[in-house]
Amino acid sequence: MNHFSKDYLVVAQNASGRNMNVPLYRFKGDKPGPKVYIQSSIHGAEVQGNVVIYHLIQTLKQQQIYGEITLVPNCNPVGTNIKAGEYTMGRFDPINGTNWNRGYYFDPALVNEFAKTVNEQEPNASVKKRFREAMKSQIDHRLNSTWGLGLAQQLNLKLQQLAFDADIVIDLHNGPVSTRHIYVPDYAKASASLFNIPHVILIPNVFAGALDEATFCHWWTLQDILSKKQQREVKFDVEAFTLEMGSQEVISFDEGQYDAVSILSYLNAKGCLLDADYQPKTMQRVAVTLNNYKILYTQQGGIVDYLAAPGSHIKAGQPLAKILNVDDLDSDKATETILAPCDLIPILHFPSASVLSGTQLYKCFTDYFTLTEGT
Amino acid sequence: MNHFSKDYLVVAQNASGRNMNVPLYRFKGDKPGPKVYIQSSIHGAEVQGNVVIYHLIQTLKQQQIYGEITLVPNCNPVGTNIKAGEYTMGRFDPINGTNWNRGYYFDPALVNEFAKTVNEQEPNASVKKRFREAMKSQIDHRLNSTWGLGLAQQLNLKLQQLAFDADIVIDLHNGPVSTRHIYVPDYAKASASLFNIPHVILIPNVFAGALDEATFCHWWTLQDILSKKQQREVKFDVEAFTLEMGSQEVISFDEGQYDAVSILSYLNAKGCLLDADYQPKTMQRVAVTLNNYKILYTQQGGIVDYLAAPGSHIKAGQPLAKILNVDDLDSDKATETILAPCDLIPILHFPSASVLSGTQLYKCFTDYFTLTEGT
Amino acid sequence: MNHFSKDYLVVAQNASGRNMNVPLYRFKGDKPGPKVYIQSSIHGAEVQGNVVIYHLIQTLKQQQIYGEITLVPNCNPVGTNIKAGEYTMGRFDPINGTNWNRGYYFDPALVNEFAKTVNEQEPNASVKKRFREAMKSQIDHRLNSTWGLGLAQQLNLKLQQLAFDADIVIDLHNGPVSTRHIYVPDYAKASASLFNIPHVILIPNVFAGALDEATFCHWWTLQDILSKKQQREVKFDVEAFTLEMGSQEVISFDEGQYDAVSILSYLNAKGCLLDADYQPKTMQRVAVTLNNYKILYTQQGGIVDYLAAPGSHIKAGQPLAKILNVDDLDSDKATETILAPCDLIPILHFPSASVLSGTQLYKCFTDYFTLTEGT
Amino acid sequence: MNHFSKDYLVVAQNASGRNMNVPLYRFKGDKPGPKVYIQSSIHGAEVQGNVVIYHLIQTLKQQQIYGEITLVPNCNPVGTNIKAGEYTMGRFDPINGTNWNRGYYFDPALVNEFAKTVNEQEPNASVKKRFREAMKSQIDHRLNSTWGLGLAQQLNLKLQQLAFDADIVIDLHNGPVSTRHIYVPDYAKASASLFNIPHVILIPNVFAGALDEATFCHWWTLQDILSKKQQREVKFDVEAFTLEMGSQEVISFDEGQYDAVSILSYLNAKGCLLDADYQPKTMQRVAVTLNNYKILYTQQGGIVDYLAAPGSHIKAGQPLAKILNVDDLDSDKATETILAPCDLIPILHFPSASVLSGTQLYKCFTDYFTLTEGT
Repeated sequence: MNHFSKDYLVVAQNASGRNMNVPLYRFKGDKPGPKVYIQSSIHGAEVQGNVVIYHLIQTLKQQQIYGEITLVPNCNPVGTNIKAGEYTMGRFDPINGTNWNRGYYFDPALVNEFAKTVNEQEPNASVKKRFREAMKSQIDHRLNSTWGLGLAQQLNLKLQQLAFDADIVIDLHNGPVSTRHIYVPDYAKASASLFNIPHVILIPNVFAGALDEATFCHWWTLQDILSKKQQREVKFDVEAFTLEMGSQEVISFDEGQYDAVSILSYLNAKGCLLDADYQPKTMQRVAVTLNNYKILYTQQGGIVDYLAAPGSHIKAGQPLAKILNVDDLDSDKATETILAPCDLIPILHFPSASVLSGTQLYKCFTDYFTLTEGT
Repeated sequence: MNHFSKDYLVVAQNASGRNMNVPLYRFKGDKPGPKVYIQSSIHGAEVQGNVVIYHLIQTLKQQQIYGEITLVPNCNPVGTNIKAGEYTMGRFDPINGTNWNRGYYFDPALVNEFAKTVNEQEPNASVKKRFREAMKSQIDHRLNSTWGLGLAQQLNLKLQQLAFDADIVIDLHNGPVSTRHIYVPDYAKASASLFNIPHVILIPNVFAGALDEATFCHWWTLQDILSKKQQREVKFDVEAFTLEMGSQEVISFDEGQYDAVSILSYLNAKGCLLDADYQPKTMQRVAVTLNNYKILYTQQGGIVDYLAAPGSHIKAGQPLAKILNVDDLDSDKATETILAPCDLIPILHFPSASVLSGTQLYKCFTDYFTLTEGT
Repeated sequence: MNHFSKDYLVVAQNASGRNMNVPLYRFKGDKPGPKVYIQSSIHGAEVQGNVVIYHLIQTLKQQQIYGEITLVPNCNPVGTNIKAGEYTMGRFDPINGTNWNRGYYFDPALVNEFAKTVNEQEPNASVKKRFREAMKSQIDHRLNSTWGLGLAQQLNLKLQQLAFDADIVIDLHNGPVSTRHIYVPDYAKASASLFNIPHVILIPNVFAGALDEATFCHWWTLQDILSKKQQREVKFDVEAFTLEMGSQEVISFDEGQYDAVSILSYLNAKGCLLDADYQPKTMQRVAVTLNNYKILYTQQGGIVDYLAAPGSHIKAGQPLAKILNVDDLDSDKATETILAPCDLIPILHFPSASVLSGTQLYKCFTDYFTLTEGT
Repeated sequence: MNHFSKDYLVVAQNASGRNMNVPLYRFKGDKPGPKVYIQSSIHGAEVQGNVVIYHLIQTLKQQQIYGEITLVPNCNPVGTNIKAGEYTMGRFDPINGTNWNRGYYFDPALVNEFAKTVNEQEPNASVKKRFREAMKSQIDHRLNSTWGLGLAQQLNLKLQQLAFDADIVIDLHNGPVSTRHIYVPDYAKASASLFNIPHVILIPNVFAGALDEATFCHWWTLQDILSKKQQREVKFDVEAFTLEMGSQEVISFDEGQYDAVSILSYLNAKGCLLDADYQPKTMQRVAVTLNNYKILYTQQGGIVDYLAAPGSHIKAGQPLAKILNVDDLDSDKATETILAPCDLIPILHFPSASVLSGTQLYKCFTDYFTLTEGT
């Protein structure tokens, strides 16, 4: 069977001077194969990924694998534990507002430099090995700088050290009030249909700070440079995804089982599992390019009844939300209805009825297209 | 038709030095009758009451009334506007932790003193009038003290000034994740069946700081003293209730309509409406005494799947919640199930999956009994 | 020399399911003597007490003692670690607003019951031992109730279990922006002059939830009952104090040394130290009774320049604060000066310039008197 | 005398549906001259600038000016009013962590496009006028987009609309615990000595989202393009600065007077005042380039005694801070001293003693140089 080990990574110290740890669960197969890295809860209120990892571990205790799978639940013990009122203020560092998912490292200059050291004869495996070492030594260097680094960035870089070893990186998130969706790098678009996730956002080779980008931007950029230089397609078979598995602030063991199976289907297709029969579902998958994944902000403050359920198909002009204005309950202005500016699928909405002007009310698929058909 | 007026009450000034107002909507009938006071959102995240008041206003624009109805939505403009993360931290003053619903005024000594001034010949109407004046002058005195008062208490007393004029006081609240329930003073138990609310908590003549108590404790205590003194039943026909209409942080216009009708049924039964046919529903109503409305606290921290839905009937030993422990995902201790310690109805549960030890997980009816039968 | 030991007490579990510990440092002398319990930082932002305990430990490593001294720094690891912005939101549970220093246990009925079991022949030492056992078994019972307890109360009761063993209980706090002051129970007034603290608040036998009260109210009440019953003065020589050592959110090793010496002077006078020459300073000590320790609340919101320094003597009519109103910078109403309503000593003021109406601006000694004269 | 007017700008609506306003105070001289824009408190806890504007207004009521001066105190009524505990969480939007000072607009492409429309004959005044119109129409366009904008960005753009009219833009800030310092764009370096501010940070033509940058990057870039194209030095005489006037969370009318005079000295030198004798002080001014303004982060969590006062000169190896570790009070590891990694001037430090690992402990001038000598 697989070799299993468990370890802890210190990622921070709290104000009591105590270490804050992240658990690392590792399964190593007898036979070689891809390395997989899966983490959850970098945003402290997005806890469902921990349940998915729980189900994955139950399966992997029984299921032989190729290669290696590292599972990192509760990967942000700081964010998980910041309460403000009954909810978890886990999206950003409460001290400075830094989003916990924006401090990963991508350095195009480093990729360029590295690319110069690769010649046509060097096998891919060797290039990958050397590139990983270069990157990790770069991250080490940053983590050990004299003047230090901010907490979120320290956390991100320590996780990235682990993740950069992997061929497959999956970062488990949740939306506010949300339906399932996945961010897929454009060059790995084919993999979108290996997960059982109905909504797909295709993203370009642009870095905005997140772990999936910090992974694929490096490899994608290196591929592009080498392919151009060597005038042949160079592929490193590294893929990275952000999965958004429904709403934050709730967990469900049942829903977690669904997402665990979805991930196992992908891993099986990628050759990580021995004699397994996990297959992607035949289902409708709808996709957008990132520029068509739009945020609708409120123009007004008030109290909102969210009329359009995440995942539903809304036509231009149909109501999305109805806002109550407490100062005009006796007049026609008591309520205002916000209409869809075009055909769209709301993917998630703000989790509170009380909104200020400029609140991110809905995020929506517009100009979307069908990736796979259901039955 | 009714005479309608709208006014604003200044209840606070913010750090920009600006007034924070509460809107007062008032309907006055042509004919005498009870005075009604209804407020909502003293807890800033409990916003559904504003929708109920919206529906009440729509009705009262068409419906003749006896007496007077004052409607006060958004009665805590401070609490409504304190965000911490995406949610509203509206249960308590973010500066000092003071619950916004615990600073109303009840002074048994004042009631005792006042009772001495009542003789047997004085008609009830006169006693009520004089008692109101005494109370309101007492509150005035406190509001104008040299050394001042805390923000929450100022807010509470300014609202209580208005509410103490009324014969019927209804304070609209929501639970965290909650089913409909109502707090009913024991002496007004008969009124519990006039609302369309399935879960009833019967409360004794004990003051804990809330508006309903600050209302009925005064009148109930005065009734008791005078009844004893005059050796006959003295009744002032003042009633006060806290209605909890489902979950905080969400509104629904549809659900609000249900609760507006429920309140109109009560008001109709109390003689506030002219030629109206609002009747309480035939439905099952279940009640507990306050001491049997129990809080279940967590013994452990972790991530919770809430298995028992608010309003469901749970037998002793059945599962209420399943807690995930991220450090033991590979062992038998990965999950722990919390069982019902006795037969119970969970009324509400904590709104976040992430809990520390000592979290108020569920509030439950135990030793409950049937008040009215459904069909 | 003293026997030293170190231990950890688990007081909570966080949302990651991990234990949160309180360190217990214990010095035990070779010879019998009083038991001392000193804790710090029950309010998470009041951290200077940890420094004082640091200095006490440095001394106690060299200084022989009678009896036993237990030192408990960082006694609220939850509160210490709740940041909101750059500051520590440590005065109350961020989930429900519960003040971390209001959940200790005092049950007058228990004292009454217990008093009945004491006869005139029983020696004080035996009464104390039995009373402690009764109390601790009562607290045990509460901590182990089926339905559980809230987090703050669990924390308080676990600490109280330790503290109730002691003859001397010192709870180290800080004010917002504050000068040194101490709460002294009226019956132990003589001890006020054994500390080097210039401002003394004398408090009656009334329980409001804090640790010092939870300690002395039990013993004071028992003393009173037994003294009356036995018609002689019964004394248990148990004392408890809350020390407020300057401002929250800052520490100073130098100031901590001053307060450590102050506490050692008291302990020396109480016979806790062998051959030590710590003596209380000759200094002016000023006292008030609790009812004359007054809070001045703001009537308005705005931005405040605090003109009166904590500890200074202010005459009636002199300025305490000047408030800026951003909407009237061009008029006479641009600033408003708040004057002292009577002769007073401001002891502490609100730590932020930005205030809403109803903010606790200053806490002041009024009608104070001199306890000891300086030189 | 000057013509004075006062106006309000609506910048947001709160959850009660109410407008949140910013006051605009405007002085217009009889004679033409530069337009000046001064705002304060975009970060809600940085309130001293409001006092400075108060003093400026008192002066300008008496002092004739050339041109026009617009003063905008309390420019972020949202941030000013978010309390969390006693402090103001005003650096970022509490909902999403967005820094209130990072959403101004700079579009190099727009500058490039615009530059093409300028020919050598066009007078500077005309270019400035047209460029302002182009920019403001661009901002208008963004403010009115169908999908809307986030709250912080809406606020920023509405203020930028006003500020972009000005030749002189001054943004008044405070540091956490801080000494006076100023950000000066490299091309306006000569102006650094016109303020009475001892610490100067020289910044390059790089946009990071702040108002000063959003102002000077546009003009500086346009200057550079046109100068190159026209092969002569084109200058628009637009300058923008961020002034940091000491610590947040406090105000002082006395200190505010100092800073008002400092600003008046600059304005006088720039020809904004008639017959005024405000002169910059002869004083030592020390400067760094932005890359040498370094942040020192903590490697550990704990409780900090800040040993190095802002503004003091510290040698390499001298102590900056001493950190207490509550778990090791009995050992050598009880305290740890953080030493200066090189010669430096600490300009500001973190405002709380309690820090996690990765906290921005100090910001320091390194490799600084003298700009002007004192006497």
